[in-house]
Amino acid sequence: MAQSFGVIGLAVMGENIALNVERNGFPIAVYNRTPERTDAFMANRAQGKNVVAAYSLEDFVAALERPRRILVMVKAGKPVDAVIEQLKPLLDPEDMIIDGGNSLYEDTERRVKDLESSGLSFIGMGVSGGEEGALNGPSMMPGGTRAAYEAIEPIVTKIAAQVDDGPCVTYIGPGGSGHYVKMVHNGIEYGDMQLIAEAYDLMKNVLGLDHKQLHEVFSEWNTTEELDSFLIEITADIFTKMDDTGKALVELILDKAGQKGTGRWTVINALEVAVSIPTITAAVNARIMSGIKDERMIAAKQIEGPTASFDGNAQAFIGKIRDALYCSKICSYAQGMALLSKASELFEYDLDLGETARIWKGGCIIRARFLNKIKKAFDEDPKLPNLLLAPEFKQTILDRQTAWREVIAMAAQFGIPVPAFSASLDYFDSYRRDRLPQNLTQAQRDYFGAHTYERIDKAGVFHTEWMQETAPVA
Amino acid sequence: MAQSFGVIGLAVMGENIALNVERNGFPIAVYNRTPERTDAFMANRAQGKNVVAAYSLEDFVAALERPRRILVMVKAGKPVDAVIEQLKPLLDPEDMIIDGGNSLYEDTERRVKDLESSGLSFIGMGVSGGEEGALNGPSMMPGGTRAAYEAIEPIVTKIAAQVDDGPCVTYIGPGGSGHYVKMVHNGIEYGDMQLIAEAYDLMKNVLGLDHKQLHEVFSEWNTTEELDSFLIEITADIFTKMDDTGKALVELILDKAGQKGTGRWTVINALEVAVSIPTITAAVNARIMSGIKDERMIAAKQIEGPTASFDGNAQAFIGKIRDALYCSKICSYAQGMALLSKASELFEYDLDLGETARIWKGGCIIRARFLNKIKKAFDEDPKLPNLLLAPEFKQTILDRQTAWREVIAMAAQFGIPVPAFSASLDYFDSYRRDRLPQNLTQAQRDYFGAHTYERIDKAGVFHTEWMQETAPVA
Repeated sequence: MAQSFGVIGLAVMGENIALNVERNGFPIAVYNRTPERTDAFMANRAQGKNVVAAYSLEDFVAALERPRRILVMVKAGKPVDAVIEQLKPLLDPEDMIIDGGNSLYEDTERRVKDLESSGLSFIGMGVSGGEEGALNGPSMMPGGTRAAYEAIEPIVTKIAAQVDDGPCVTYIGPGGSGHYVKMVHNGIEYGDMQLIAEAYDLMKNVLGLDHKQLHEVFSEWNTTEELDSFLIEITADIFTKMDDTGKALVELILDKAGQKGTGRWTVINALEVAVSIPTITAAVNARIMSGIKDERMIAAKQIEGPTASFDGNAQAFIGKIRDALYCSKICSYAQGMALLSKASELFEYDLDLGETARIWKGGCIIRARFLNKIKKAFDEDPKLPNLLLAPEFKQTILDRQTAWREVIAMAAQFGIPVPAFSASLDYFDSYRRDRLPQNLTQAQRDYFGAHTYERIDKAGVFHTEWMQETAPVA
Repeated sequence: MAQSFGVIGLAVMGENIALNVERNGFPIAVYNRTPERTDAFMANRAQGKNVVAAYSLEDFVAALERPRRILVMVKAGKPVDAVIEQLKPLLDPEDMIIDGGNSLYEDTERRVKDLESSGLSFIGMGVSGGEEGALNGPSMMPGGTRAAYEAIEPIVTKIAAQVDDGPCVTYIGPGGSGHYVKMVHNGIEYGDMQLIAEAYDLMKNVLGLDHKQLHEVFSEWNTTEELDSFLIEITADIFTKMDDTGKALVELILDKAGQKGTGRWTVINALEVAVSIPTITAAVNARIMSGIKDERMIAAKQIEGPTASFDGNAQAFIGKIRDALYCSKICSYAQGMALLSKASELFEYDLDLGETARIWKGGCIIRARFLNKIKKAFDEDPKLPNLLLAPEFKQTILDRQTAWREVIAMAAQFGIPVPAFSASLDYFDSYRRDRLPQNLTQAQRDYFGAHTYERIDKAGVFHTEWMQETAPVA
């Protein structure tokens, strides 16, 4: 009997998603480039399951029912192209390849075009949730033709994380839209993580909280409607983990953050399409800054910061940090959603931003109760230009802005860097300003480069010979 | 008699640089794609000068002494490639093409390889100073082989701006290094302009200064060793320019800043080579933010900021804003120079950072007395990892950091966005920290994605099963 679904690539994500598919009632075939890994999988985790192992792509393809549905879980970039090139001659019309890796959306655009023109189907699908999500229910962002999506819908809706209003998967849109949305999801994830890191830094280094107190604070935050989320939950957890030395393990971890590229891609793309995402940018940059540890250790010996010490009400300040974190988080999501909105328009993705927020409610790294509010905001107004204008978010920030501003002022005075908190506040304060000081920038550009300018009081494009006939100052 | 130098492209930059070369004693030949522009040039500005007009590339090439030196001043991108392709078959071995536009350094790398392999020379040369600089003395950043540079050295050293310690041109390095350095120069220029815009915003909207007072403040700043610079000078000038309506012209200019791409390229490249340049990034982003004027006008009606009013000593606060501006400027240059330093290593440019600072002292947009200090810092320690560690800059910031922090705290409380001031302070406070909170980020990444981490107390790469066997909190 032919298997209904194929998986190529048996690294941990591939294995886990394969087992998830099989557990949900779909017989699978698997293939891995190195046969040893296939053997290990069959001998261990696939034992007793409805799994056919193939040791050549020919056998793999032959094992699948038609039209075939083949999920490729290999490293993004050239390996994906290599697998596609090997598979293409073996496939029949209407067979489908699904790329479940973190591919760059532009690569996906190219592959969709290439495969559709060969009569095959292609889906570029962002998968979030890490190893655990892949096994028990990820959030999935599939992009391609609607017909292609419909052919995998019965499977993906079953293997996805399930939340109150359905499975964490939906048809995202055409072309590379699935991987685009996943990229922005990851950018938002960078923002969330950096905001939590800054809150931790302030509580540890201004208030002197120890790991036990930090655990308590994050646990409490995790009970609130605003902050209840996977990342706050695991942060609370992390502070409970002790090392053999008797210290909290997290305090022994080197403060150099790695990154795999999707955050950077988000920032680069935002620059290209001219959408302002400063919180996410600050988060990506903070990881880069963390990377020059050797230089920082030298600098720390030579450059002294301020020597302020905290003498206020610690409990009240913790509340203000929570407010600053939440306001900043709203700004970060506002930026991410604004980027999706612009991309939707430019690339004709026709994204449903409410649905996008909904499928992030479970399975993925940024899952959070807060996403209900985002879904609601876009459901109420699908053309909402920015989350900051949604009544609930606007009111939330207005109620908390004093605390937020105080935290940033305090951080500056204590010498604690809060690049993502600050970038969020500057975003908020720029967004709500009808008049920014870039009139001066335009005057300068016209002065030295004759770049011309527009005026606020009449239409047209103007140039001034600034150096000549200067009128006396009135 | 053959002409010694050729210029292709007679837009204003090309015209001006051609006249500069001729004025300095080098007979020139010119060519423009549309003959009308050549006619206009010959009939007007070239009247009575030693200029030969050519109406075909064949005639143009024939008019030049060998080996030929041909400066191309056309729009960056495809037009440069088009001119090169047309010229190539007409040239003889050792003839040289110089691209004086704002080309992307990667394009220049490609062109250098292509032309050198054809036995021709190629120089990618950044030219800064706008129209006025091109005519009277720009700052030039030529990259290519040293032999190629030597063939143009007699000309470029004469046409360059001249400062106390020589002409504002030097051999930058191989390949695309000239355009790379120009790109970073432009990124720094974005940073300078944004910092000035923020100072203006604070003085206008917190202190209520009018254009006359702003003129006075910037004029006074322009007399100081720290801030004496072209951009501060023209800013002071700008506030003197009155409109027919009786208002200061700058206040009537639309606050939507344009950009032509080099700032964005700088930020993207910094992300790619993993150097932190948050001040420059904030400046590029502020222009993007300024662009969504329509949205901001809607938001301004709906979202109220704080209603603080200033009741301190305005004169003292102006001094603090000056300190904040100067500290931020040091951070911005520290970032730009760190980026050059990393690129020098990665791309094997072997840049002389002191010389780079020196040739920016005249002719270009960022010219400033302050560059003497940067030159001195790198002359004293060519391997200086960061300007913040140079004794003079370090001391300057330590002396002023309290004022800087106060300004940022005040801006947050008044609701004035200061993204570049804030990004600079966060850069400073991150750089001087031996311990940043990214240990938590690494713990989170290991928790959800098994990304592993390093430790501060022992070598190796570690992974923890965070969800299992959690020890009780001590």
